[in-house]
Amino acid sequence: MTDESLTRQMDFLLEIDRLKAVVRQCYHLHSEKKENSAEHSWHVALAALLLAEHADERFDVDRVIKMLLVHDIVEIDAGDTYIYDEQAAKDKDEREQRAAERIFGLLSDDQRDHLMDLWEEYEARETPEARFAYAVDRLMPFLHNYHTQGRSWREHGVTSTQILAVMSSVEAGSRRLWAYTQSLVADAVARGYLPE
Amino acid sequence: MTDESLTRQMDFLLEIDRLKAVVRQCYHLHSEKKENSAEHSWHVALAALLLAEHADERFDVDRVIKMLLVHDIVEIDAGDTYIYDEQAAKDKDEREQRAAERIFGLLSDDQRDHLMDLWEEYEARETPEARFAYAVDRLMPFLHNYHTQGRSWREHGVTSTQILAVMSSVEAGSRRLWAYTQSLVADAVARGYLPE
Repeated sequence: MTDESLTRQMDFLLEIDRLKAVVRQCYHLHSEKKENSAEHSWHVALAALLLAEHADERFDVDRVIKMLLVHDIVEIDAGDTYIYDEQAAKDKDEREQRAAERIFGLLSDDQRDHLMDLWEEYEARETPEARFAYAVDRLMPFLHNYHTQGRSWREHGVTSTQILAVMSSVEAGSRRLWAYTQSLVADAVARGYLPE
Repeated sequence: MTDESLTRQMDFLLEIDRLKAVVRQCYHLHSEKKENSAEHSWHVALAALLLAEHADERFDVDRVIKMLLVHDIVEIDAGDTYIYDEQAAKDKDEREQRAAERIFGLLSDDQRDHLMDLWEEYEARETPEARFAYAVDRLMPFLHNYHTQGRSWREHGVTSTQILAVMSSVEAGSRRLWAYTQSLVADAVARGYLPE
């Protein structure tokens, strides 16, 4: 451990404070505010800890938690891309890759590589950890929408067909959570939160 | 796994959304907003991951991260008690204990016990994990204050003597981070962010 590594850690920790100002499309459940990506990251990390028992594969939940703490940091430069915005999705990967290199690059090489590995694993969705992390990351904003009577879905004219397409990645992490999601989508349609 | 455990997990995850509305005394580094306890929890969990190499004792960093994800949930009922507010400190323990029982009690017994254990271990500061978690939880708002020219210190008339007393618990987690803290306190006095 050197003074240089501490300096770099501090630079990084101060820089990522910016994630608290990256606003998402989701509303808080108990206030009129939109959620930001830092508080979302906290919420999904805890959700993964609690919901791990519903996963179909055995995995390391501690790695899932670290992945979720890191997964949105690239949004500091790349912004939050709304999952139903097909136009913005086109150059999302390129924007996020540049962001990862700049932001994780503030750290010493070994810590940069550690965080980059977590982020790349999450994005690739090829491990049980990444599949479950991704499922929970889809599930939480879905729950927020359902429990605010589909508020941001209605604002963006999202349909149940679009939602089922986006949410189908939950199935790769947990068939149980996917069945639960499908039942809530049907209920949202029945309640008029969503057009079919 | 039963339907009941999933229902309880959902009740808990929806309830803790309220932590995003618990406002702290600290300001964001890059905006005029005050920080909330959910985004703070994300920030300290990542700080623990990165700063773990500076700890004096060997410990399980994954447990520290989980402790920090959970440590402020009691504030949903008990509010954030400003560390320099001696009046509010008097019944803090009682308020927080009641909050822990209600909020963690939303979960099934095994998950309630798991989260209660993490929270109680953090509060007791008797394990290397809890000492380091506590040190990082003190360090982050201190850094926010230092890097906003002592903004919330000045608003509350906090002195460097008070800060050194509160921050001395950093030493139990990491002598390296404690030396770093002391150097920043001296610098904050020199720059006029703090009266002596």
